[in-house]
Amino acid sequence: MTTEQLIAQIREKQSFLCVGLDTDLDKVPEFLKKTKDPIFAFNKAIIDATHPFCVAYKPNTAFYEAYGSEGWGSLERTIAYLKESYPNHFTIADAKRGDIGNTSGRYARAFFRAMDFDSITVAPYMGRDSVEPFLAYPDKYVILLALTSNEGAFDFQTLPSPKEELYLEVLRKSTTYANADRLMYVVGATKASFLKKIREIIPDRFLLIPGVGAQGGSLEEVCHYGLNNQVGLLVNSSRGIIYASTEADFAEAAGRKAEELQQQMAGILRAAKI
Amino acid sequence: MTTEQLIAQIREKQSFLCVGLDTDLDKVPEFLKKTKDPIFAFNKAIIDATHPFCVAYKPNTAFYEAYGSEGWGSLERTIAYLKESYPNHFTIADAKRGDIGNTSGRYARAFFRAMDFDSITVAPYMGRDSVEPFLAYPDKYVILLALTSNEGAFDFQTLPSPKEELYLEVLRKSTTYANADRLMYVVGATKASFLKKIREIIPDRFLLIPGVGAQGGSLEEVCHYGLNNQVGLLVNSSRGIIYASTEADFAEAAGRKAEELQQQMAGILRAAKI
Repeated sequence: MTTEQLIAQIREKQSFLCVGLDTDLDKVPEFLKKTKDPIFAFNKAIIDATHPFCVAYKPNTAFYEAYGSEGWGSLERTIAYLKESYPNHFTIADAKRGDIGNTSGRYARAFFRAMDFDSITVAPYMGRDSVEPFLAYPDKYVILLALTSNEGAFDFQTLPSPKEELYLEVLRKSTTYANADRLMYVVGATKASFLKKIREIIPDRFLLIPGVGAQGGSLEEVCHYGLNNQVGLLVNSSRGIIYASTEADFAEAAGRKAEELQQQMAGILRAAKI
Repeated sequence: MTTEQLIAQIREKQSFLCVGLDTDLDKVPEFLKKTKDPIFAFNKAIIDATHPFCVAYKPNTAFYEAYGSEGWGSLERTIAYLKESYPNHFTIADAKRGDIGNTSGRYARAFFRAMDFDSITVAPYMGRDSVEPFLAYPDKYVILLALTSNEGAFDFQTLPSPKEELYLEVLRKSTTYANADRLMYVVGATKASFLKKIREIIPDRFLLIPGVGAQGGSLEEVCHYGLNNQVGLLVNSSRGIIYASTEADFAEAAGRKAEELQQQMAGILRAAKI
């Protein structure tokens, strides 16, 4: 998928919503637990109900790995279903990988070839040669952790380094990586005021904002500082959408929640004349 | 497994060798490819041949994920075989995970419960609440990335921050995490001269040294600066051992390579009177 296709989807749907598929077997409605693959059945219903209102899906790999090779199978079926039924949706493996080049190359193969994700989240601590193997794939994207939404973000990411805070150094250095045009960045919604500094360094890149919904964070504030003239934002909501109800109506409830967020986004885009 | 048990194993075997199971299907000997699970068959033969000479095994998760849920199945069979046949060996999931608390909790469940690894490598970028969920498990260990062995390590890890370089801040702050006695650290063998500074901050902790063998790095230099009076080192070799031969004698060749390294280690331990 190209960035132009993603932007076209955002404009057409008036939405930059990403639905996080952090699927927890304990929260899957009882009647689905009798099916052969309850996690996939849940994801399929959520996807079918929410797809008109969002442009991206983000399975969080931890939730699948917690169920071993069976869980990994649910992840494979989920991405295969997305590619087959909704090929215009952008897909994000929220996997936070990153290792020496040889190993990052293997992770890239896992997520871009064995599965067919459009993008993967990557941790920057190991530097250039841990990121570039992911950037070697045309029309695939790396979403690099810049400033995350959790408390621990202030442990290291905001430490001053020679010129500026570490997360800003991460942004700046990453723009020199080979194929840096395939980079996007994770920026925590709860740090919206930081977005201004971030946009000075990377005005044109997409930002994945993970923290709207259960993790707090205001959509208006994020948009105020983060929007660029091609939108340039993907705002994720996981628990707020997929667990809107845990009853038989869970998929419809998820659809309604996704539609609510989409409507807010449409209003913001109209007001900003984007 | 407790640290005391690990140290006892090291003393008994006169070895602090960790064998890295970076198993690549393309490098598995032809005759094994006809078996049902060639990756597991390869690992089992390597483990059977090398176990007298090493105290730890470290599967690198990327190599298994590259083959999807089948690969994940091979990883599950490998850790199950290790636990059943060689319960005194320390096991490391080289997974480089780390995410917000909720998600790190899931990864901990994946590697410590769904599988029964003794430890997992974790990236520190997201700070305290991304690491502590892994530290909540008694007798399980986190091996935190401190200073890695790749070129990209100099992108961010060695940036000066207010008091000192970032990797030293990572070490220092991590000692204040809840259950910090369950922390070990990844330190690249090619940076042996850095070990002196590291030992000043964490004199008693175990260091996992990934870079001896294919990645370069001198065992003598690592030991000179890194040994403490309880050894405190696990030195890994992956490709140098498991691909010593790609013929029918691959397991014997791996065993010989492992024994060579064990003999060097025994000499070093004798000379250091540990």
